Amino acid sequence: MLDVRTAARLMRDLDDRIPGAIERLKALYAHTGRAFIIGITGNPGAGKSTVVDGLIDFYRKAQKRVGVVAVDPTSPFSGGAILGDRIRMQRHATDDGVFIRSLATRGHMGGLSRSTADVVAVLDAMGFDVVLVETVGVGQDEVAIVSQAHTAVVVTVPGLGDEIQAIKAGILEIADVLVVNKCDREGADRTVRDLVGMLELRPAGAPDVEIVRMVASRGEGISELAAAIDRHHTRMVGSADELARERRRVEAQLRELLQERLVSAAERALLAQGGLSALAQAVAERRTDPYTAADEVAAAVLR
Amino acid sequence: MLDVRTAARLMRDLDDRIPGAIERLKALYAHTGRAFIIGITGNPGAGKSTVVDGLIDFYRKAQKRVGVVAVDPTSPFSGGAILGDRIRMQRHATDDGVFIRSLATRGHMGGLSRSTADVVAVLDAMGFDVVLVETVGVGQDEVAIVSQAHTAVVVTVPGLGDEIQAIKAGILEIADVLVVNKCDREGADRTVRDLVGMLELRPAGAPDVEIVRMVASRGEGISELAAAIDRHHTRMVGSADELARERRRVEAQLRELLQERLVSAAERALLAQGGLSALAQAVAERRTDPYTAADEVAAAVLR
Repeated sequence: MLDVRTAARLMRDLDDRIPGAIERLKALYAHTGRAFIIGITGNPGAGKSTVVDGLIDFYRKAQKRVGVVAVDPTSPFSGGAILGDRIRMQRHATDDGVFIRSLATRGHMGGLSRSTADVVAVLDAMGFDVVLVETVGVGQDEVAIVSQAHTAVVVTVPGLGDEIQAIKAGILEIADVLVVNKCDREGADRTVRDLVGMLELRPAGAPDVEIVRMVASRGEGISELAAAIDRHHTRMVGSADELARERRRVEAQLRELLQERLVSAAERALLAQGGLSALAQAVAERRTDPYTAADEVAAAVLR
Repeated sequence: MLDVRTAARLMRDLDDRIPGAIERLKALYAHTGRAFIIGITGNPGAGKSTVVDGLIDFYRKAQKRVGVVAVDPTSPFSGGAILGDRIRMQRHATDDGVFIRSLATRGHMGGLSRSTADVVAVLDAMGFDVVLVETVGVGQDEVAIVSQAHTAVVVTVPGLGDEIQAIKAGILEIADVLVVNKCDREGADRTVRDLVGMLELRPAGAPDVEIVRMVASRGEGISELAAAIDRHHTRMVGSADELARERRRVEAQLRELLQERLVSAAERALLAQGGLSALAQAVAERRTDPYTAADEVAAAVLR
């Protein structure tokens, strides 16, 4: 099993793209596949961090070791990794059964999901029983990341506007368990009713999705949430659904790794002609169009 | 100039990946580069749609033709394209100086940004003076999309929690103009003060970012916003910043097109061995690891 010091160094080296880090990751991949991965996303302001904090406590009391990946938006002003480390690390800093890692959105699109998969693999190889993957945003990438967990939890709150309803519809499809947090607020019943209504719109045979009411800031509903997560997990284990989801997860990861490798190769091939930016300049000046330019580069690098 | 009927068909064919659609897009690329592209993003519930609606009215009164791309999350229940068409189309349906197109997040990651670029190119070639690109989510992809506009507007509202502050920090870096909407709410002064504070944390020499107070639902602040957008645009036109941004925009587009072409080629090359899903199965069973698998596929398809 990977010790904390080695794991922390590996994560840092992966972040910094140190040559050889990926070789170490390859070597430990055979030791992965044991952790139970729980994804958590939802509307900004829904109190996801508080829910995650409650789950950490719950699993620690159950003698489980807990890894956390907090996927945060980067700010050039704060240096990224805003929430995870700063707020929560302190409380759990002395508990070696908890390991929290923040991931900022650096680099271009897609990289975030790849980095998350890498960190989850390291935590898995470290022997953590549960890995919580929390995203701050609610965009396409974040939804994709959470949908790759064994159990995906979507957190919402009462009293949000119409636009939120739309987003809720967008992320509802990935929810295995729905949380209505801040249920001491007005409108909680209506929000639960709305969610039930949306779930009923799904095609016949769609899987069960439990709705859990919480006031996470007071610890209310945490054990109910953990029980709902456990019921989902139990239903999934060994099922055809679970295998299909695992294959989808790996497929998405393979597609990202391929993107990275193939586009890097194309960029290297373009170096002699001034790189991608020289080509972009030609397109910007309308000397060619982006579609033709991409076709030509692809033809040049592919067998 | 592209007429509405031809353009609408082209957009539909691009969506459906009809062969030949991309050839038509290539042909009209030389006629692009004239529209002024304004990106609008911000916290869910901040009233972006109302701001966009106000801008449509403003530019129409100034005799400008306005194209709108609403980038929405897909819901399998609603069939996607939730906000744009349904709510706003009706009001502007009889105005042929307005063309609204909703884009749902279908397919895997990154595709959204590519589709947006395609639709913007079509609207540009149709001769629209202004193209408004609005995103519903606030994830990495959505931020990337909006940051590629000529002028990026970020909309927020008073009285959001700490988590929102973090997201705000993440998207603040792309804002050319900041809007504090719903300024009739309590806490507006504090929100403006917070934003000023965050802007002051930027390195010396960072570009000016105006903050506009609005109550978009009452039309308050729309002309001030349009003026701030215009001042930013005027500062940019012909500047080194503008050229750099255009090159970045095209580079991002080229990278996406390359990803799509190269990964498709890799998937085709894998077909004889059962495709990407057979490889995913091998990884899921830990017969290989994803990094080695991706390396091998890349080696097989690259020259």
